[in-house]
Amino acid sequence: MTKTILFKNRPSGKPETSDFEITQEEDPKPAEGEILLKSLYISVDPYLRGRMRDEESYISPFKLNEPMESNIVAEVIDSRNSNFKKGEFVSGMLQWKELQVSKGTGLNKVDKKLAPLSAFLGVLGLTGLTAYLGIEKIGNLKAGETLVVSGAAGAVGSVVGQIGRLKGCMVVGIAGSDEKVQHIEEKFGFEKGINYNSTNNMRKAIAEICSDGVDVYFDNVGGEILDAVLANINKDARIINCGAISLYNETEVPLGPRQEGILIKKTALMQGFLVRDHAKDFGPALRQLAGWLKEGELQYDETIVEGFENLPEAFIGLFEGKNTGKMVVKV
Amino acid sequence: MTKTILFKNRPSGKPETSDFEITQEEDPKPAEGEILLKSLYISVDPYLRGRMRDEESYISPFKLNEPMESNIVAEVIDSRNSNFKKGEFVSGMLQWKELQVSKGTGLNKVDKKLAPLSAFLGVLGLTGLTAYLGIEKIGNLKAGETLVVSGAAGAVGSVVGQIGRLKGCMVVGIAGSDEKVQHIEEKFGFEKGINYNSTNNMRKAIAEICSDGVDVYFDNVGGEILDAVLANINKDARIINCGAISLYNETEVPLGPRQEGILIKKTALMQGFLVRDHAKDFGPALRQLAGWLKEGELQYDETIVEGFENLPEAFIGLFEGKNTGKMVVKV
Repeated sequence: MTKTILFKNRPSGKPETSDFEITQEEDPKPAEGEILLKSLYISVDPYLRGRMRDEESYISPFKLNEPMESNIVAEVIDSRNSNFKKGEFVSGMLQWKELQVSKGTGLNKVDKKLAPLSAFLGVLGLTGLTAYLGIEKIGNLKAGETLVVSGAAGAVGSVVGQIGRLKGCMVVGIAGSDEKVQHIEEKFGFEKGINYNSTNNMRKAIAEICSDGVDVYFDNVGGEILDAVLANINKDARIINCGAISLYNETEVPLGPRQEGILIKKTALMQGFLVRDHAKDFGPALRQLAGWLKEGELQYDETIVEGFENLPEAFIGLFEGKNTGKMVVKV
Repeated sequence: MTKTILFKNRPSGKPETSDFEITQEEDPKPAEGEILLKSLYISVDPYLRGRMRDEESYISPFKLNEPMESNIVAEVIDSRNSNFKKGEFVSGMLQWKELQVSKGTGLNKVDKKLAPLSAFLGVLGLTGLTAYLGIEKIGNLKAGETLVVSGAAGAVGSVVGQIGRLKGCMVVGIAGSDEKVQHIEEKFGFEKGINYNSTNNMRKAIAEICSDGVDVYFDNVGGEILDAVLANINKDARIINCGAISLYNETEVPLGPRQEGILIKKTALMQGFLVRDHAKDFGPALRQLAGWLKEGELQYDETIVEGFENLPEAFIGLFEGKNTGKMVVKV
C-alpha cells in the first residue's frame, strides 16, 4: 500500500491539518511508456496556498478530494519508458504520494553528483531559479546599488541576497526574528538585517540603514513591509513582486496605502514575477547557480521535516515562520 | 505695468482662487544676453497641484509669495541675446507674467507654420510628448491588443487613444460625462467610451467592453478606476502610471485594495512615467506627432480660457472636469 495526501477542505484563513487527509491505495504499476517513481523529497511552498482557493490563476486550483501536488525529487524504481532508467533521479511537479506512475512529461533528470538531492527543490530548483531570474528579468541590478529583500532568510530571499552581494550591491534583508537576522548577516553575507517583528517603525528603520535609498526591492511578502520599502525608494527604483505571503491567508480584500502616487513620483517600476514563465532560461540559470555553489559563493539552508505524513504540518509551518531556508519533507 | 500671479497659500484640498494673488510690477527690461518675452498662451496642468505641496518631488515645490510657473508660449519682443530674434516664438517653463525677461536657457523655438501656437502647449508640447513617449517607453503596444485610457477626453488621454488606434489596438476610453464619451468615439476614433460618473460597477463595465481583457492601461487618474481596470488585466499587462488626478487633492494618505497580489498573479507591470526624464527623445517624438498632425491622423481639442487674470480659475477647473482636451489660457 502507498500513502497519498488528499486536499479535503478549502481553508478560509490559515490552513489547518484537517484541510488534508492521508489515505492509502494499492501500489501503482507502470503501463507501457510509464515509469514508477518513489518520492524522496517533497517541496512545500507558500504559493500552494493560492492553489487552495477556488479561483482561476496562473496555475489551476487544487480539486477537493484529489491529491495535493508540488515539486518532488523522486527515484525511478521501475521503467517502461526508454527515456528513463531504473535508478535515475528526477524532479518535477508530482503528486503527494509515496509511489506514483508518470509518463515522464515535464520531469527533469537530476545529477546527484552536483549537489545533495534536496537541493534540486531549493537552490538548484524553482526557488533558486526564482531568485536568479527575478533579478535578471526585472531587477537590472547595478554594482553599488542598494538591494532590499524581504523573506530574507527564506529559500528565495537568501539566494537573492547572495546574488546581490556577488553583483556588488549593498544588500539589506528583512526577516522575522533576531536569529534569522544574525543568520543572514553571518552565513549569507547580507550587509544588514532588520527584524520586522521587533521593529516599530519599519519605514524609519529602512531609511536609517539604507541611507542612499532603495534601488531594488525583491518582495516576497507584500503588505505593510512593501509600504515601508516604497516610502524609501529612489528614482527609477525596481520592485520585483515575487510573493505576498503576508496576504495569502487574508479572507477579505486587503487594503493599504495607494501605490500609484509614489510610482509616478519616483518613476518606479513594480512587476509581478513567476518563474514558470521563464522555463527557456532555466538551463543557463542553473549552470550559473551550480557554478557559484561549486565555488563556495552560494550557501543555502534547508529545513528538512522527516516523514511523509508530516507534509501538511510542514506546509502550515511556512506561515508561522518555522522554516529557515527551503522547507522540504523527506519521505 | 505688467501683471504677475503669485502663489499665496498652500491648499489642503482643492485649490481656491484665494490661494493666488494678482499683482502688478514695473515692465521688466532685458539686460545684455537677455530677451524680453510677452506671454501669449499659458498652460495649466494637473501636475502643478503637486508643486503646491511643500514636499520634495521630481520638480521643486512652488515658493509662497513667488510667481507661479508653467509651460508658456511667448513672443520675443526685444532681444539682447544673439540666439533669439525679435518676432520669434518660444516655449518653455516660464513664470505667470504678462512680460518677463529670460536668458533663453531651456526655451525651444516654435515654428508657427507647423501648427497654431497653442498646440505647442498640447499635442506638440508636453502633453502630446507624454502620450507618445509613455506608450513607447512602457506600453509596448502590439496590434490587436486592448488599450484602456483614463482621462480619455483630456490632453494626454485623447492623444494616447489615437496613437493606440494608429497602432492597430482596440481602444477604450474612460471619461466623466456622456458628452465626453460621445466626443472621444466620434472625434478621436475610440472604439468605445465609458462614463465613470454614470456607471455603478466600473469593473463589470470594463469586463463587458473589453471581452478579451486589458493588455495596456494608460492611467491618468489612479484611485478606484485603476482598481477597476486592474481587476480586468491580462497576463503580462502593462500599466503606465502617468497621473493620479483623483488623488491629488486628498489630504490623507488614500487607501485602496492592495495591488501586489494581482501584479504577481498576472505578472503585470506598473511603472511611473514622467515625460521630463526623456528630453533626449523629444525631437524624434515631435517629428512623429507633427507628421501625424499634418496627415490628419491626429486630432486635438483645446479649451481656451481668455484673459491672464483667469489663470487660477482655469487651473482649478481642471479638477472639476471643465476642460475638454488641453486647457490653455490665452493672455
